[in-house]
Amino acid sequence: MTTPTYKFGIIGGDMRQRFLAEGLHADGHRVSVCGLENSPSGAQFGAPVQTVCAESDILILPLPALTAEGCVAAPLSNRIIYIADVFEHARRGGLILAGRVDRETRETAKQHGLTLIDYFDREEMTVRNALATAEGAVQILMEETSSCLAGAKILVLGYGRIGKLLARSLDALNARVTVSARKEADRAWAECFGYAAVSSEEVASRLAEFDIIVNTVPSKVMTDERLQRVRPDALILDLASKPGGIDFQAAQELNLRIIWALSLPGRVAPKTSGDIIRKTVYCILKEQMA
Amino acid sequence: MTTPTYKFGIIGGDMRQRFLAEGLHADGHRVSVCGLENSPSGAQFGAPVQTVCAESDILILPLPALTAEGCVAAPLSNRIIYIADVFEHARRGGLILAGRVDRETRETAKQHGLTLIDYFDREEMTVRNALATAEGAVQILMEETSSCLAGAKILVLGYGRIGKLLARSLDALNARVTVSARKEADRAWAECFGYAAVSSEEVASRLAEFDIIVNTVPSKVMTDERLQRVRPDALILDLASKPGGIDFQAAQELNLRIIWALSLPGRVAPKTSGDIIRKTVYCILKEQMA
Amino acid sequence: MTTPTYKFGIIGGDMRQRFLAEGLHADGHRVSVCGLENSPSGAQFGAPVQTVCAESDILILPLPALTAEGCVAAPLSNRIIYIADVFEHARRGGLILAGRVDRETRETAKQHGLTLIDYFDREEMTVRNALATAEGAVQILMEETSSCLAGAKILVLGYGRIGKLLARSLDALNARVTVSARKEADRAWAECFGYAAVSSEEVASRLAEFDIIVNTVPSKVMTDERLQRVRPDALILDLASKPGGIDFQAAQELNLRIIWALSLPGRVAPKTSGDIIRKTVYCILKEQMA
Amino acid sequence: MTTPTYKFGIIGGDMRQRFLAEGLHADGHRVSVCGLENSPSGAQFGAPVQTVCAESDILILPLPALTAEGCVAAPLSNRIIYIADVFEHARRGGLILAGRVDRETRETAKQHGLTLIDYFDREEMTVRNALATAEGAVQILMEETSSCLAGAKILVLGYGRIGKLLARSLDALNARVTVSARKEADRAWAECFGYAAVSSEEVASRLAEFDIIVNTVPSKVMTDERLQRVRPDALILDLASKPGGIDFQAAQELNLRIIWALSLPGRVAPKTSGDIIRKTVYCILKEQMA
Repeated sequence: MTTPTYKFGIIGGDMRQRFLAEGLHADGHRVSVCGLENSPSGAQFGAPVQTVCAESDILILPLPALTAEGCVAAPLSNRIIYIADVFEHARRGGLILAGRVDRETRETAKQHGLTLIDYFDREEMTVRNALATAEGAVQILMEETSSCLAGAKILVLGYGRIGKLLARSLDALNARVTVSARKEADRAWAECFGYAAVSSEEVASRLAEFDIIVNTVPSKVMTDERLQRVRPDALILDLASKPGGIDFQAAQELNLRIIWALSLPGRVAPKTSGDIIRKTVYCILKEQMA
Repeated sequence: MTTPTYKFGIIGGDMRQRFLAEGLHADGHRVSVCGLENSPSGAQFGAPVQTVCAESDILILPLPALTAEGCVAAPLSNRIIYIADVFEHARRGGLILAGRVDRETRETAKQHGLTLIDYFDREEMTVRNALATAEGAVQILMEETSSCLAGAKILVLGYGRIGKLLARSLDALNARVTVSARKEADRAWAECFGYAAVSSEEVASRLAEFDIIVNTVPSKVMTDERLQRVRPDALILDLASKPGGIDFQAAQELNLRIIWALSLPGRVAPKTSGDIIRKTVYCILKEQMA
Repeated sequence: MTTPTYKFGIIGGDMRQRFLAEGLHADGHRVSVCGLENSPSGAQFGAPVQTVCAESDILILPLPALTAEGCVAAPLSNRIIYIADVFEHARRGGLILAGRVDRETRETAKQHGLTLIDYFDREEMTVRNALATAEGAVQILMEETSSCLAGAKILVLGYGRIGKLLARSLDALNARVTVSARKEADRAWAECFGYAAVSSEEVASRLAEFDIIVNTVPSKVMTDERLQRVRPDALILDLASKPGGIDFQAAQELNLRIIWALSLPGRVAPKTSGDIIRKTVYCILKEQMA
Repeated sequence: MTTPTYKFGIIGGDMRQRFLAEGLHADGHRVSVCGLENSPSGAQFGAPVQTVCAESDILILPLPALTAEGCVAAPLSNRIIYIADVFEHARRGGLILAGRVDRETRETAKQHGLTLIDYFDREEMTVRNALATAEGAVQILMEETSSCLAGAKILVLGYGRIGKLLARSLDALNARVTVSARKEADRAWAECFGYAAVSSEEVASRLAEFDIIVNTVPSKVMTDERLQRVRPDALILDLASKPGGIDFQAAQELNLRIIWALSLPGRVAPKTSGDIIRKTVYCILKEQMA
């Protein structure tokens, strides 16, 4: 079986997209890039948007695709790249892959006769990303504590993708892991994997036991009342996306040590993250061409 | 907090129910039992059905509750226990907990003014049962092979509850585990846990690689065509409930070694299985009383 | 690099030697066999001793090589094979590999102008054998208990080869493992691997905690006094070679359940055991020819 | 059993000794400290050496105890602390515990009527330290790579204390670990724990396979010739104490990325390191008092 060769256009993004471009190129595809010219030895990664759009079968936007101002996220470029320009110059009938795009942007793409697919919607992508997040969390915990993780009493709040993979890594490094989960079935799962498990109610009375508390739940689970029970020398790591799971003001008043870590995969493992996007791109193309 | 004390009636079942009875008794509840008089030193476990029904707040039927003929399953008794008798003598407004009951039986219970709850419906129960099944599968594989599992190349078909827990146990014992799953996301999960993963299509061409193949998928995944690719000295273990996942006739003609293992938890770990039922009973009661 | 081809003669032994013969043959060597004619489809494995000795560059005797009566151990043969006959007919200057031979036998071999090497003396062999023993112990524990190993409280007495590998397997299956060791450094190792550790003195006062006790220490560690503290429903597995580590008479009087499991690799995993001997044979030959 | 209470004097050292002082104090002992006055909120940790020596039953010097110039290592102090002063003012018949002291210093202590014990000589200490080193190595590898460790191909050179524990941690995080060891028995051990193993000769031809190479062997194993086979984008981490295991000049000429990480426990986990010293101190005292 011969794998088809594509012309990819990478527009904007951080080091993940840079590694994505290199990976696609190494796999034998043609790749043109704009908006990454400030990445290391990145001179050739600053082609004009129009050229990249005109040359490519498939355009790949970053994760997340757009800034708050509605431009393509391009922290490694001095230029501003308007999404409108991308849509205007992209080939009719072309395919755009982008991470975390809102409905409005999707609609606009459609009006330009373009198919826009959100690659962050794909579960295999979020699972793989969760592993990179878990590993990044382990790194931060190692850096931010003066003790080994081996032997540390660690509470993981939530047992979704990240909770599952983080509990496993910490347990593997000999930490004493307790998982807090709302659902009885999730607690049964955690116990089957060898961790202690407590319900979301019970956990309140046990917060003082832990050296480290990692939150993965995207809602305010660590309220003022609960924060008061945390040991003053404990470390709290919040992995939940905005607005986070911790009452930061209360934590500050209690003088607790909180780290709020967002977008870990891109920060601690941009190459792996670029590889994950690449694998997902191939899955999408396989389905689109099927 | 004081835990309430109940009067339980255990009717029928195998050694799991015997251990369940002992566990409930050890926890301070009153327990009367019928239909287990042939279990070891079980003389007092053969009370009349009427007495047990009349004395109990909560009746517990086995898993599965009924035989093909519609009687309460009671392999450790010489008596035939009609479900109709149970319904007739149970206290009005009483609670019956039973494993794997059909809709008709549930309806009949309702008509007698009884609440019948299927404890096998509860996810925490099926998860814990899956762990016992996985451990039972490991035991069978150890018994049925003349090689160590360490180093053995093992294919696990399916990545549901049992697949997840079995892959983990085998990996922990140093087997080289490959998981076959239909969904890309399941394969991503398997890879994140450190196993190799293949799609359901790809696996066909790789069947000859494996020393052991364990099926957990409840549909005919191992067709005649696929069985022909299996190594003659390989062992195939089928954990899927009836009708199983293997074309047994084809396997027989090919002279392949197949083991079809059903109801493992009750067979290899009746005490743990009884404990799982007991925990589930407490969860149900907690919710019912809330 | 081409590997040299040898003429091997296998004399006596159990299924391990049968698998050894098949493995050597599959690797391209010439193999003649005597004393295994009663193994399954073993008609051709009953050549006369003289022929086998005369034809072979290297003779391989079983593990252990000799019976109490001083004959070659040959439980799968009707014949009696005298070691004297082997020595007499073996080629002058030839090599004999044998398992667990005493000094006297080694001397006699020397007098016949033969080099006799004990393959059980090799540490890589005893390490690999220990893994097979540990896996066999796991199998026995699964078979002999009505509970899952997951969650069971297990004490491993001794932290030598078998103790190390058994603790790891049980821990991997989610048992709660405590290692008892005399040396502080061994306890530090056990803790570094994530198990609880107690000294040989402390353990006495904690024996009642355990569901399962596995002894790997070849001296009477489980005295009458200590056995009295074991829970009546606990299972004790003794893996120590003769005379074993348990006061059996005291255990019997206390009505404790003891299993004394010797020679596990050959019994539960003869193929793996044959492969281990084969690998060791190759290591020895590589060194001899260097 | 009541544990005896001691008067400890801590002299010099880094954050490990600071945490040691706090730990001993928390355990109920009297502790006076000199040479740590520049540690955070450390005002009271700068008592005069004479006072500390005069007040204490047991003096504890750092690890390593002395600088190249023969003073007590005291990087968190502005003062110079002469070992001669310590010996002079220490109580006759008193006990001095110190890390990595040379024979000469030990002799001098003896001449002053003092017992000097090297706590780094104790195997349980070096084992526990090796775990902290392994965890520190994992942290560095996470920080210094743009990929996840999960999936990375990692070679661990050497299978001593650190090699054993590092291989385990990396394997647990889903890296693909190969151990290189000189002894056949060590390779058998590595394989029994689930890692790939190669001999020290074979490894030369396979160096190009690895993303990461970690050396734990205290001799020049990575020669110019071998370094030439390493992939240019690979990371080499050297954990071997001086003079290290890598030909640094050759590596530099080849433009390879090398990190030489010494004294990891004290740097990445000073609290755990302080706890390890404390536990070792107690072990020594228990033996001395026995």
